[in-house]
This record gives sequence, C-alpha cells and structure tokens, in this order.
Amino acid sequence: MKKIGILGVTGYAGQQLLGLLRTHSQIQIEFIASYSYGGQEFSSIYENYFQEFKKICISSEKVEENLKKIDLLFIALPHGKAFEITKKALDIGVKVIDLGADFRLDEFEIYEEWYKVPFKGKDILSQAVYGLTELNREKISKSNLIANPGCYPTASLLGLIPLLEKNIIDTDSIIIDAKSGVSGAGRSSSISSLMCECSESIKAYAVGTHRHTPEIEQEAGKISKKKITLTFTPHLIPMNRGILSVIYAKLQKNIEEEEIKKIFLEKYKNEKFIRIKDNLPETRWVKGSNYCDISVRVDKRTKTVIVISAIDNLMKGAAGQAIQNMNLMFGFEETKSIDFISIFP
Amino acid sequence: MKKIGILGVTGYAGQQLLGLLRTHSQIQIEFIASYSYGGQEFSSIYENYFQEFKKICISSEKVEENLKKIDLLFIALPHGKAFEITKKALDIGVKVIDLGADFRLDEFEIYEEWYKVPFKGKDILSQAVYGLTELNREKISKSNLIANPGCYPTASLLGLIPLLEKNIIDTDSIIIDAKSGVSGAGRSSSISSLMCECSESIKAYAVGTHRHTPEIEQEAGKISKKKITLTFTPHLIPMNRGILSVIYAKLQKNIEEEEIKKIFLEKYKNEKFIRIKDNLPETRWVKGSNYCDISVRVDKRTKTVIVISAIDNLMKGAAGQAIQNMNLMFGFEETKSIDFISIFP
Amino acid sequence: MKKIGILGVTGYAGQQLLGLLRTHSQIQIEFIASYSYGGQEFSSIYENYFQEFKKICISSEKVEENLKKIDLLFIALPHGKAFEITKKALDIGVKVIDLGADFRLDEFEIYEEWYKVPFKGKDILSQAVYGLTELNREKISKSNLIANPGCYPTASLLGLIPLLEKNIIDTDSIIIDAKSGVSGAGRSSSISSLMCECSESIKAYAVGTHRHTPEIEQEAGKISKKKITLTFTPHLIPMNRGILSVIYAKLQKNIEEEEIKKIFLEKYKNEKFIRIKDNLPETRWVKGSNYCDISVRVDKRTKTVIVISAIDNLMKGAAGQAIQNMNLMFGFEETKSIDFISIFP
Amino acid sequence: MKKIGILGVTGYAGQQLLGLLRTHSQIQIEFIASYSYGGQEFSSIYENYFQEFKKICISSEKVEENLKKIDLLFIALPHGKAFEITKKALDIGVKVIDLGADFRLDEFEIYEEWYKVPFKGKDILSQAVYGLTELNREKISKSNLIANPGCYPTASLLGLIPLLEKNIIDTDSIIIDAKSGVSGAGRSSSISSLMCECSESIKAYAVGTHRHTPEIEQEAGKISKKKITLTFTPHLIPMNRGILSVIYAKLQKNIEEEEIKKIFLEKYKNEKFIRIKDNLPETRWVKGSNYCDISVRVDKRTKTVIVISAIDNLMKGAAGQAIQNMNLMFGFEETKSIDFISIFP
Repeated sequence: MKKIGILGVTGYAGQQLLGLLRTHSQIQIEFIASYSYGGQEFSSIYENYFQEFKKICISSEKVEENLKKIDLLFIALPHGKAFEITKKALDIGVKVIDLGADFRLDEFEIYEEWYKVPFKGKDILSQAVYGLTELNREKISKSNLIANPGCYPTASLLGLIPLLEKNIIDTDSIIIDAKSGVSGAGRSSSISSLMCECSESIKAYAVGTHRHTPEIEQEAGKISKKKITLTFTPHLIPMNRGILSVIYAKLQKNIEEEEIKKIFLEKYKNEKFIRIKDNLPETRWVKGSNYCDISVRVDKRTKTVIVISAIDNLMKGAAGQAIQNMNLMFGFEETKSIDFISIFP
Repeated sequence: MKKIGILGVTGYAGQQLLGLLRTHSQIQIEFIASYSYGGQEFSSIYENYFQEFKKICISSEKVEENLKKIDLLFIALPHGKAFEITKKALDIGVKVIDLGADFRLDEFEIYEEWYKVPFKGKDILSQAVYGLTELNREKISKSNLIANPGCYPTASLLGLIPLLEKNIIDTDSIIIDAKSGVSGAGRSSSISSLMCECSESIKAYAVGTHRHTPEIEQEAGKISKKKITLTFTPHLIPMNRGILSVIYAKLQKNIEEEEIKKIFLEKYKNEKFIRIKDNLPETRWVKGSNYCDISVRVDKRTKTVIVISAIDNLMKGAAGQAIQNMNLMFGFEETKSIDFISIFP
Repeated sequence: MKKIGILGVTGYAGQQLLGLLRTHSQIQIEFIASYSYGGQEFSSIYENYFQEFKKICISSEKVEENLKKIDLLFIALPHGKAFEITKKALDIGVKVIDLGADFRLDEFEIYEEWYKVPFKGKDILSQAVYGLTELNREKISKSNLIANPGCYPTASLLGLIPLLEKNIIDTDSIIIDAKSGVSGAGRSSSISSLMCECSESIKAYAVGTHRHTPEIEQEAGKISKKKITLTFTPHLIPMNRGILSVIYAKLQKNIEEEEIKKIFLEKYKNEKFIRIKDNLPETRWVKGSNYCDISVRVDKRTKTVIVISAIDNLMKGAAGQAIQNMNLMFGFEETKSIDFISIFP
Repeated sequence: MKKIGILGVTGYAGQQLLGLLRTHSQIQIEFIASYSYGGQEFSSIYENYFQEFKKICISSEKVEENLKKIDLLFIALPHGKAFEITKKALDIGVKVIDLGADFRLDEFEIYEEWYKVPFKGKDILSQAVYGLTELNREKISKSNLIANPGCYPTASLLGLIPLLEKNIIDTDSIIIDAKSGVSGAGRSSSISSLMCECSESIKAYAVGTHRHTPEIEQEAGKISKKKITLTFTPHLIPMNRGILSVIYAKLQKNIEEEEIKKIFLEKYKNEKFIRIKDNLPETRWVKGSNYCDISVRVDKRTKTVIVISAIDNLMKGAAGQAIQNMNLMFGFEETKSIDFISIFP
C-alpha cells in the first residue's frame, strides 16, 4: 500500500486525480491540499463525493510538514508553483508527479522565455522525466520526478511520433490545429469561462504564442534528432471536456494512407490506451477515459498527411496519464484504476 | 456466473446496461440484441467500445431461440414490445427485467387508457414486481419478473414515500414539477431532439397527460392506502442526462423542516444510494451514478413542504436500478458494479 | 429626439438596453456608464459592436455631472445601488427607469427584510410606478420613476393576472415553479456561473427565499385585493437566455380549459407582446424578443389550472420591457425598436 | 415593391431568409414553398412567428405555376434539386438565387465528380454568377442567376483573397481548418445531429473529401490565375450557429504581420460587412449577423501566415449573403434588412 498526497486537489485536474486514486486498491490517500479551500471538507466543494469521502483539505502551507508521511506527491498547480515543494519532497525521498509545466522543458531558458517567470529548479531539472508514458515508459518507471505532459502536447505528440520516427514528413511543414473544451481553462472565476461567454461560440486563442508549443517541439525534436519548429493553434470549444488535435504535414514521398495506418498500428500495437481507428475520432468516445483515439488520412491531392487524435484533457491529458505514470513508478499494473471506457451520452 | 441477454441494447438505456454489466464480475453477457442494428458490431455504433468489446448485435427476432442460454433477460424497448418475449422467457424459467412500461401498472385497464395500446400480458401481470428497489427489496429478490420503474417515478416516489408513510401531507395537494435531460427522449431520429431544436430552450410537455402519472399515483396510493391523484408536469432541459423532481405538498400540521429532514434520514439510513442533503440537489452531482440526492425545504409562509430529488435518468432512472434489482434477484451484493460516484465536470 | 444615459451598460441587461436603443430613431444615447469598465470603449468588451459603436464608457462617478444632458436615465445595477443617483436625477427633472429592485416594493420594510440592505429612498418611493407594462400602462406613461419588474415576476404575473382578476383560483394554493437561463445570474466572475459548473446540470436555488417572491405577492395581492402568499421556486437551466414560469393553482369551481383560455385571450386581446397559444410555450420561440407566450392547461383530475409562460429574461424580463416603458413615458409608439420576433435557431 | 418566392422555406437557411425578407420594406413575399410541410401554416413549424406571420407553405410542386407572380425565386434545397425549377424561372424572366450547390462550380464534370449526381443545367450554367458579394459585386448586380456560395467557402475565401491578390503566399501550402455549428447539417432527422450525439463532443468529418473543397479551389484559382489545390478539413462543433475558418499558408517572403493587416484593411476598406480586427474573431460576435470578422497573425518562427475568419453560417454563409445579393440585383441599398449586429449572449 503506497501513500500519496495531492497538492491542488480542488482544481479540475486535481479532483480528477482524487477520483481515480480513490478506486485504486494499492493506494492510500494520506492528505489532500488546496490553496483556496484549506480547512474545508472536499465534498462540500465537489458534492458528488457527499457521504462517500470525508477528508478535509489541508492548506497548501501544511504540505511540507506532511511530506514525510507519503511516498509520492501529485502537484496540480499553475506553473511556477511546483519548484520549492518538489525540492523538499525529493530531498526526503518522496517521489513527485507534477501535472503543471515547471519541469517539462529541458532548457530553463526556454521555460523562462515562454512562461515569463523565473525558473527556480535548476538543481533538480535533470532528474525530471517527461511523462508521456508511451514515449518514456522505461525512464518513468525508474524516475522520482515526472513532468506530466500538457494536454495539447499529449494529443499532438501521440499523433506525431510515428510520422517522425519513420521520417516520412517534411518537418518544416507541421501545423497543429487543436481544440479543447472549457475545463482546460481551469476552475477559476474568470469572465471568459462563464457559460454565457463561451457557450454558443468558438475562438482560436494564443495563436503562435501558446506555451505548449515549445513542449511539443522539444519532444518532436528529440525523436527527429533535429530542431523542429511548428505552428500550433489552440481553440476553445463549447464543451466541458475533450481535446481534438489535427496534425497536418507534407509527405516526403508518395506513401499510401493504408501504409501510414500500418505504421501507427505497428507502433502502438502493445499500447492499451492508443486506439488506431478507421473512423475519425470524436472526443465523446474518449471522454472520461484514458484512451487516445487516432486516425490517419492522406490527402493525395496535396500530398498532405492528416493525423487526428482525440483525448480527454483531464484524463490522458492530465490525471489519467499521471496515474498511468504512478503505476509504472510503483511497479503496479499500468492500467490500474484507469482501465475503463467512456460513459455515453 | 450468471448469463444474461439484453434486448434493445442500442438505445440509450440499453447501452448503459451493457456498460454496467461488462464490469460485473459475476455476469457473463451471452447475447445483445437490437431491432435496428441486428448483424452489426456494437462498437460500430458506440465507438467508445472500440477494441474493448467485440460482440455483434443479434436481431431481435433471434432472441427467442437464444433464451435458453441465459438466466435473465433485460428488455429495454418502447412500451408494448415486451409482452411476448417476456412470456416466452418466464415459460422456460428465464428471469426478466423490463425497463419499459409494460408491467408497471397493476391494472391493465389503466395501462390501456394511458398507453393507448392493447395490454397483452394478462396471464403474467400478477407475477410482476414494481422494481423500485428501496420500496420492494424483499419482493424483488424473490421475483422472476421485474417492472423496472420509469425515470420520473423513481425520482418522484423516492421523495414522496417518507411524506406519505408519515402521513404529514394533504394528499390532494401534491404537485410534481419534474425536469429531464434529452436522453430521456431516446435515441431516435426525431426533429424535436436535434441539437438545434432543444439546446438553448426549455419547455414543459405532456402537461396533465404524461404516462408516468398513473405509475406514480399507483405506488403513492399503495403507501397511503388510499387513492391518490396528483398533478405531474415534465419538462425537457437542454442537457443530456439527469432528472430533477420538485415535489410540492401542503403540510397537514405544523412541522419543522428539521423534523422532516430527520424523517428522511431515518427512512433511508441504510440506503447506499439515497443521500439526504442540506444543500439543494443538482443533477451534476449524481450524473452517471446510481445515487438519488434529496433535500427537504419547508416554506412556512405557505405551509408547503418542498422535496427536491435528483437522479441520473439512465442510471437510477433506468439501467442502474435494473442492475441493482438484478443483484438482488441473483443474491449478489446489491451495489455490485454500480458502486461509483459521478465524474465531474 | 430624446436623450438618454445608461448606468450599468456593461452588464447583460445594460448591453441589451444599449442594443435596443441604438436602433431607436427617436433616441440619442448621450452617455453610457460602467462601474468596472470606465474609460474603456464599449466595443472592446462587447465586440459585436466593433466598428459600429465607438462610445467610451464613462465611470459611474461621472454620471451625476452628466445628468443634466439627458431626459431619461436607465439604471441597470445590482440592488441597493440606485437610490442616490435616482434622487439626483428626479431632482433636476430627469426621468428614471430602474431595472434593479430598489423601487419595486411598496413597503420599504419588506425591501429591507428580503434584500438585507437599508432602504435609502423613502422620500421618492411613492413616485415609483411598477413597470409591468400591461398592468400599469396609464400610470407608466405619466410617471417619472419606473421600477422595472424582475424577470421572474414579469413571467409569473402575466400568467397569474387573468386568473386573479376573474377570481377563479384558490389564492392560498398558488405555486410557481420557474426556470431561468444563466444570464439571469449576471456577468460577474463567479465560479457557479462557469460553463463547466452549470452546463449539463439543473438545480433549484433559493427555495422559499428568493427576493422576487414578495414582488410577485405584492402585485398579485393588489389585483386580488387581499394579501397573497405563494410558493416560488426558481431553477437554473443550462442555457443562456429564457425563463419558463409554470404556475399551479386549485380552481375554485369547475371551469373548462377552453373557458380559461378565452379569459386569457380576452384579457390580452390588444396586447402586442402577449401571445396566448394552444401549443405549450418554449423559450426558444421568444428568445431575443419582447414576447411573452402563454398557454393554459386544466388538469381536471386534480382541479388544477396550470399556466405556463415563456419570456426572454433580458428582453421582456428586463431591457425590452424597459424600452416598452420608455416609449410610453415619451409618448412614442409602444412597440418602437422592440417589434421583432425571435431569431432561430 | 419586388415580389419574391422561397422554395425550401422550412429548412434552417430558408426560414432565416424569410426572417430577413419579412422586414424588408421593398419586398413582398408572394409565396413560400416546402417539400415536407406543404399545406401547413409556417408558424406551426417555427412558432416564433405565431400570430405575426400567417402564410401557409405551398407544396414544392406548386412552385412552377406560381413563378409568374414573382420577380425572384430563392431556392434553399439540397444539391441536385435546383436545376429544373431554375430553368423554368429563367425562361419567364424570373431571377434566381440558389443557396444550394448546383450552380457554384464552373465545370460540370467537377460537380459530378464531387457531388455524385448528374448535372442537369448545362444550358444555363454559363449564366450563373458566383455570389460572393465582395468578390463579384458588379456581375451580381447584372445577373439573373446567382450561385450563392457555401458557408465554408464564404468564410475561407474572404480570408484567402487578399493573400492571393497580393501573391504573398506559397499557394501549394494552403491548409484550411474550419469549424461549424450544427445548423450546418440542416433540419433533418438524423441521429448524428441529435443533442445527445453532438453536444459535449467535437469531430472532424469528410477530411479531404468535403464538397466545398473544389468551390474554394475554383475561386482561389481564378484570383491567383493558376490552379490551386488545397487541404480543407471541416469540423462539427457543439453549438447551433457559426463558422470559424483558420487558414494557414507559408509566406513567400518576409513580411510583417502589420503589413498583411494593412493589405486586409485596404482590400476591405469599403466593405460594410468585413471587419478586420486586432483581437481574434469569435463566432459569438457575428452570430445572427451578416458580418465576417477577420484577423491576421504571422508566426515568424515558421514563416506562416494564419488568417482567422468568423461568420454566421446561416447569415453571411447563406441567407444573409443571399439578401445582400438580392439587394444588388434589384438596385436596393446593399445592406437593406441585414444591417444589424449580433445579439449577445
């Protein structure tokens, strides 16, 4: 029985983490902590837990003194907030999975350029493993510090990786047009996330400037063994959960759709959570689950390959993948407590 | 290991049944049958099952010849369609849980009056037990034919029963104003269920004429030991799942809100799925789960008690309760495979 | 050409007011004022106005010094904020239409009891006319201070009035179950109005305690010439606009549905914006318009009359009715600039 | 006073047409015709018109005999249905605006290839003018047969044209990723357009095969004076109205974002309905209006220009633009009856 703590449990990703961990037979939740709701019973905020979960959120300041009780700390906070507590945890041998952005970029200068805050974890950055499970399974299982990937990078990289590994696309031509539900904006009281403001509308945002761009480029570059620069455009969609990522790239040579599909099938043949489909993915079929559905199309007229991937941003894009990584780190079965499909409708 | 079949598996209630049964360790799904999709792989219709469930729907005509392979048949069809197959099943000792309306009303004349079709099950009607679990647990566990309650009656009766048992309301004053998500209208291609027609709108429908009215009145009358006639108004709400039922009744005497709350707490103290709350119920907190959340308010100014109950129409209002009943019929743990809370958001 | 000012122009009701006034050929918008966005161009907040409306919001403190430039001031602020500026406006002969609650209740003690703030307009309260146009048309046309009705009271009273006037219901039995879209909660950054929190859910709120209750009772009582106490339950519905109000009352005598419908038709035969329908109202058919659609049903089984009314909460429930009242006060055609139907879908 | 008829008035585009024409002071609606609802009062289908519009739909077979009463016929039917009635109308001097696809493609072979039905209008095809108003204003004003553009092509071409005219992009690199609300799928009873099936989900569809592709390529090619082949990906978004089109292309040379914005401002400086914005477009700001909002971004890192355009698919993407064209054809003011902004929220 491993003991864990969650810091940032009242955000959308944090509460999803808790939901998954509660059903995990090898895990004991030692504490849950919140910046905004310290001292309140968790089920007073998320009333689906009424009568079923009685824990009270401790305030975030009290996490440090409780570190010694746990084997692993999940951090689900905005960027810039994970540095100090991560150091303290690692110092006493507590593993960390950070669902935020603080340890995802290998070069701190790039972090500071895109995130506009000082990077305060230089001494531990080298320990961090990028937690895209299907990419780094071995390393993850041996690591004490996991930088859990961003939601957009997860969806995008899972679609890009087979293309890059087989070197079949022009890497200067990559365009990623991604669409996310509103939960991606988090549970903060901003006018732009009000029902009246975002239902019945769609917008692109942060065009050319979104912070997930260098994260995708970094991992894509490592696979391609060259620097990759790509265009990434996120959109806000009037739904709660889900990301659809559409990846465009010019093919380097004539290659049939069927052949590319085979590459994907081969690449992911042992991956429980990656499903290569003929039909086009729809976020409803992965909503609430840890699956990533992927389809491939070749537009012969323009020699363009189009890869479409769908995930749930709070699951494979956040908490689900974090659990997948935790399972690896503890030597549990990888699919433990995330082995279920979407509930529909 | 009990063997089951599902007739009507491609409707919204049917697929929810399947979803629950798949995770039930003491159940083996022997066949799934569909009127419209016979011969098709189930996962080609509900793609969340892609790669995870390979069964092909048999056509509904083939159910009869497969009855002997199963211990229990779930029927999730429109009213009027369950009579014949139910007889055949019972004849050979196969238990039946009908999620439709055909066996809910004790008097076939009332069925024919409200449903406008001939009642064709007179010889077996007396075997049917009304499957509101919390009301008829004992009888259900011994029955071979369960009339699974309607969604509105489930939400409404669970709120009404404690008031009626304690005889604290004027039974001539009962008004039920209930609101349902669109999945209650089923998965049929009707214009009125199109996104464009029902998003961004609310309407009442079937005012004074909804078929769930005599069902509520029948069960309420049995508890009160007198004939009850009440006003029932259903509404369509622009969401997928959920029912909120608001019950109004005049109090017979002065009685405090707190006291009525105690009555509810006492009544349901051993019921896993009934949660009596101080906060007002919201359907999001029960969505996807088998819970029924209930709150009580007394409007002293008008001597009116207001009971508000929330369920998921496809779970406690259909498939979830059907599983709960099946568990009783087979002597399994009652909460088996329905013991989880809502996923949010 | 009359000159007007709007205080509170950046709220949902305020911006709807502006939208209607812009197309009014006898009106000149002299200034628009905002608590939160003083100094900002209106079209930077509501970008539908981009290039089409260049006015800058003045801060609310500057309204006083600009009063002398206008003939009428619209106030669209939360309760408690209208007292002082209203006095100053009336003092110099500027008419006022207050879309908030400050002048709706005839007795300030009731205001203070329900709104929990001191009433600071005792000297001018007697000048206020309750602005339900169809009820007080004559008085409105001669008044300088209009208390524009609440959204729920507008929908509810228009359905109740004919019943009360004809004295056909038991006034102790009135129950109003009303449902509103999210824009009714205003454009403030509260977590409970986030898309993720209120889409895919329904809840009742403020059961027995909503501030619109005494407003409905007051006006109903005046018509009935006796004190009326009723039960009022509001709900939050996952849509942007619209209110559906369902009114239940016991009939005093046997009276046919058709006869009650005739009463409604007769009562409202000259009312442009009140439509008595056979079909049940749906908010989509009035959305964005000033209409109130009403249907009548009699549930003979329970001797209950059920009146259902639908309005757009920002139009007939706020800005549309305010314009209707302004037109009367200025002697313009009553339907001017609000004479259009809903755009669908 | 010009007399018009509408064929296909009960579809979403047809009823939007009617809504606009009703308020047009120089137009008299002579007849409205429907395939499915012949003989029914229009307001029984679209109840927002209750009491305000009493016309009965004639059946589509009766259109021919009524042609001589009108000056112009609007056709809002699925593709393949406009050929015969158009010929008959033109024969007797009645102008035609076809909102369908039948006359949009200059080469009938391409029509038959993409639409998979025989082209039956060869003798009149040369008379057709492609009705993208801002592109062909002169020709439209002199034409008797307008092929009103598709919704996606309207949004996409308005964003592409300035780039193509100035020859600043690599025309082999064009990718259009477009997103549409559900009303684009029409008012037909298909399961895939049900609320439960398309709310809370996003999908791409018809990837590389959508019929609007050759339409965009044709018009883009004419402007570029060379054959253009591009990648076009449409998506279905859980909202009723609106299209967001995101256009990607590689820049031929270094050119600043500000300079490209100036090109757009210059190009559209006299266009009422095209608004070039600094802020990114959102469909809510154009919903229900005839505007097309456009923004330009340059991703210097990848030398890619990104143009984002937003329209309402039923307005500028269908009925609004059809009215704009009609105004030109009759010599009315171009903005007549479409000169209003979006209602929000």
